[in-house]
Amino acid sequence: MSAFSVADIAARCGGRVVGDGGLRITGIRSLEAAGPSDLSFVAEGKADKKAAASKAGALLARDASRHPGRTVVEAADPSFALAAVLDLFFPRRTARPGVHGTAVVEPGAAVDPSAEIGPFAVVGEGTRIGAGAIVEAHVALGRHCTIGPGARLHPHVVLYDGVTLGARVEVHSGVVLGADGFGYAPTPSGIVKVPQVGGVSVDEDVEIGANSCIDRATLEQTRVGAGTKIDDLVMVGHNSVIGRHVILCGQVGLAGSTVVGDGAVLAGQVGAAGHLTIGAGAKAGAQTGIAHDVPAGETVFGTPEMSHREALRAFAELRRLPETARAVRELRARSRTREEGTP
Amino acid sequence: MSAFSVADIAARCGGRVVGDGGLRITGIRSLEAAGPSDLSFVAEGKADKKAAASKAGALLARDASRHPGRTVVEAADPSFALAAVLDLFFPRRTARPGVHGTAVVEPGAAVDPSAEIGPFAVVGEGTRIGAGAIVEAHVALGRHCTIGPGARLHPHVVLYDGVTLGARVEVHSGVVLGADGFGYAPTPSGIVKVPQVGGVSVDEDVEIGANSCIDRATLEQTRVGAGTKIDDLVMVGHNSVIGRHVILCGQVGLAGSTVVGDGAVLAGQVGAAGHLTIGAGAKAGAQTGIAHDVPAGETVFGTPEMSHREALRAFAELRRLPETARAVRELRARSRTREEGTP
Amino acid sequence: MSAFSVADIAARCGGRVVGDGGLRITGIRSLEAAGPSDLSFVAEGKADKKAAASKAGALLARDASRHPGRTVVEAADPSFALAAVLDLFFPRRTARPGVHGTAVVEPGAAVDPSAEIGPFAVVGEGTRIGAGAIVEAHVALGRHCTIGPGARLHPHVVLYDGVTLGARVEVHSGVVLGADGFGYAPTPSGIVKVPQVGGVSVDEDVEIGANSCIDRATLEQTRVGAGTKIDDLVMVGHNSVIGRHVILCGQVGLAGSTVVGDGAVLAGQVGAAGHLTIGAGAKAGAQTGIAHDVPAGETVFGTPEMSHREALRAFAELRRLPETARAVRELRARSRTREEGTP
Repeated sequence: MSAFSVADIAARCGGRVVGDGGLRITGIRSLEAAGPSDLSFVAEGKADKKAAASKAGALLARDASRHPGRTVVEAADPSFALAAVLDLFFPRRTARPGVHGTAVVEPGAAVDPSAEIGPFAVVGEGTRIGAGAIVEAHVALGRHCTIGPGARLHPHVVLYDGVTLGARVEVHSGVVLGADGFGYAPTPSGIVKVPQVGGVSVDEDVEIGANSCIDRATLEQTRVGAGTKIDDLVMVGHNSVIGRHVILCGQVGLAGSTVVGDGAVLAGQVGAAGHLTIGAGAKAGAQTGIAHDVPAGETVFGTPEMSHREALRAFAELRRLPETARAVRELRARSRTREEGTP
Repeated sequence: MSAFSVADIAARCGGRVVGDGGLRITGIRSLEAAGPSDLSFVAEGKADKKAAASKAGALLARDASRHPGRTVVEAADPSFALAAVLDLFFPRRTARPGVHGTAVVEPGAAVDPSAEIGPFAVVGEGTRIGAGAIVEAHVALGRHCTIGPGARLHPHVVLYDGVTLGARVEVHSGVVLGADGFGYAPTPSGIVKVPQVGGVSVDEDVEIGANSCIDRATLEQTRVGAGTKIDDLVMVGHNSVIGRHVILCGQVGLAGSTVVGDGAVLAGQVGAAGHLTIGAGAKAGAQTGIAHDVPAGETVFGTPEMSHREALRAFAELRRLPETARAVRELRARSRTREEGTP
Repeated sequence: MSAFSVADIAARCGGRVVGDGGLRITGIRSLEAAGPSDLSFVAEGKADKKAAASKAGALLARDASRHPGRTVVEAADPSFALAAVLDLFFPRRTARPGVHGTAVVEPGAAVDPSAEIGPFAVVGEGTRIGAGAIVEAHVALGRHCTIGPGARLHPHVVLYDGVTLGARVEVHSGVVLGADGFGYAPTPSGIVKVPQVGGVSVDEDVEIGANSCIDRATLEQTRVGAGTKIDDLVMVGHNSVIGRHVILCGQVGLAGSTVVGDGAVLAGQVGAAGHLTIGAGAKAGAQTGIAHDVPAGETVFGTPEMSHREALRAFAELRRLPETARAVRELRARSRTREEGTP
């Protein structure tokens, strides 16, 4: 790990130095773990106390005045600044060009000379690997796939035939792209598979977390728009169309033909029934079970989903429901007594 | 892709031609994407408008009279007919017989000469691969497994020792069959593992989606019955017995020793506590948390589960609960006032 | 499989023989499947009837007096005794020392001579494999990882760079340890990735189920304490700190920075929002959505979580809510009639 001055760091992340700009920083650590040559990061106001107790040589924070006597790199958005500083200290790994001696590249595949193909990787016939792409150990690429320039496929990623990844797409280990969608026709003599002959198309700058699955479309393309971020163990059903800059948190499951608008955010373990549209900028709280279309910009929660406001009130009352129900029983008893008592 | 006449297509799927039976069809596309030499598919009544706007040369539909002036292949069950037509245009891949030069087949394994073993596959001692089976890249098969004739294991499937797959079973990438069940004995000095020495047995024509897991039984067999279809990221706990023609949608989780009757359908993200019986033909709505036995034919919803009818009414009232609770408070206040007012 | 006398078996598991201690036992089977030379296992009182019908030669049970006329190995904790007996009949597989000819061990990796490295495994530069460790087929180990003595990594496990596993850790197939945490800074021009430069550290005697994921920390370590057991398809978000002897059942999802105290038990499909503390010994029922800190020893249920007692009462009333709401409407109508009627 390299060392940088506080001034270098501020320059890199567009921050402002308060204190000793010449201080050499050799590491980036949490507030608890940081020492005098480390920079640390104050995410939220409630971390101020931790920051005061921290031995960090410098702090990355929104407001230096809350950290009197400290060397601070002041940044309007400390999370974004942290990203920039981490990129400075830990530059992204770039491709080590060449094909590992153990890899299998089928005839008719085209690997850019600047790309890296790791040990035991398999590249199918007709598949094209773009400039600077990294295909790590045990990645299995089917036939007629396209891997965009600068994409990175971590070990054990699987692409079925005909999957397209845009530039700089990052796919984590264990991800399966293009497995058959779950399409069957029930018949009196059993369940008949509907062949899934479409593909999967993922636009640039998408990141897909470990062991997630995006199934191929029945006829056309399951699509993921540019800049979308998908966490671990997420399932995207066949024919779904995910917009740009969408966030799908861990273990989200979208049944088939779900449309998710740009900038939507689905929290962990959210499920969506098939053939629904979740509007642009919509949000769903953790574990929400979305059973109807969600209007753009709306926040929903609960199973089946309610508006967030409605859900919070309903769940607060649910907790008091035993009491409420007892009150109803008492009122009823009293009402009956009264009616019987008043001829 | 080959070309077929509309008449060929109708013959293949048992449909009836209305219009130009001689029209050459070269592709099968969605209503939106189809052109004049494509066949498209009208799934439901509500797609009639899309169908009217479609440029498709021919339609596969239930009722030609709803598509006046169009060439239609009329079929009583369009989904089933689509499956047949897709099989015509996209014949299933068959084994390319032989063992890839990089695969490791341990001594004492028996691979049928008509089977295909892909690059970097590992076939353990005593494992038998049936006629025409396809074992793709990086598949790891333990010892004493049986792969039925015509089975297909996509890249990166893992079978632990002693797993049996019937004829034509299709297993998608990342699936793990036969990992140890989650069995422990809590003791004062910590949690002690109960060795899981049973197996997993999957009958013919089962399909298992990407990254799903079926754990081995403690002593006997975790079983999946013929024709059952399992979606992605599903977990089947140890000792479970899944019947025939069951449907387990994405991210379903069955704890240990769950019995699921023939023809049951569990929607996405359903969970079942252990040691339960879900009767034949039972259904569970998405995200249902099944905590008790479910009678055959019953439909359940909610956590803990209610009958579907009960659940829909309860959830509708839940949404109105804040209002109801307010009404109760008012009635109570009024009742008190009255009681105080009437000596 | 070897054979042991009932007396041997009792000695091994600290049990007491009632009946024929000399009987030779050749197998351990379920009550239904066992024959005269098998031992079977009576888990709970309600299995007594099954036990009576069983053909098992001997029973492992808590109380021999409930099984008159049978040969019984009486043990205070039959589950724990079963674990010991299974270990006797099915000794754990030990390492077959050596590196498979197809494995890739990068220069600068250190593999203990007593460890086993399977076919197509990849061991990155600077990674150390401890004595007696088993690294099975297709395992991909990044750089600077540490695998403790006696650890076992089943086929297709992936460790990113800098992951540490303690002694005897068992990791099932498809597990991904150390993938990037889901950390982003939203900016007006899109979502910017916060590099995840910390690691994952798993203490001794942990077991991790198939296809689970533990993400690397942003700066420090995502931690799992000794003896903790994690089921299949579980997600542990970045910066989380899981205590000792914790149980995470199938498909549990912990968002980032979750702290889980020693001995906590989260049932299947439980989710926890980020930055929460779940106290030591706390329990959560299946599918609970934990949205707040949970005090030590508390049992919670529902989404958002309530105390278990509160939840059971609330859910029982939820089922009756349509009736309760109807009663409220009637009371209201009656109250209005009365008010109108009384001038």
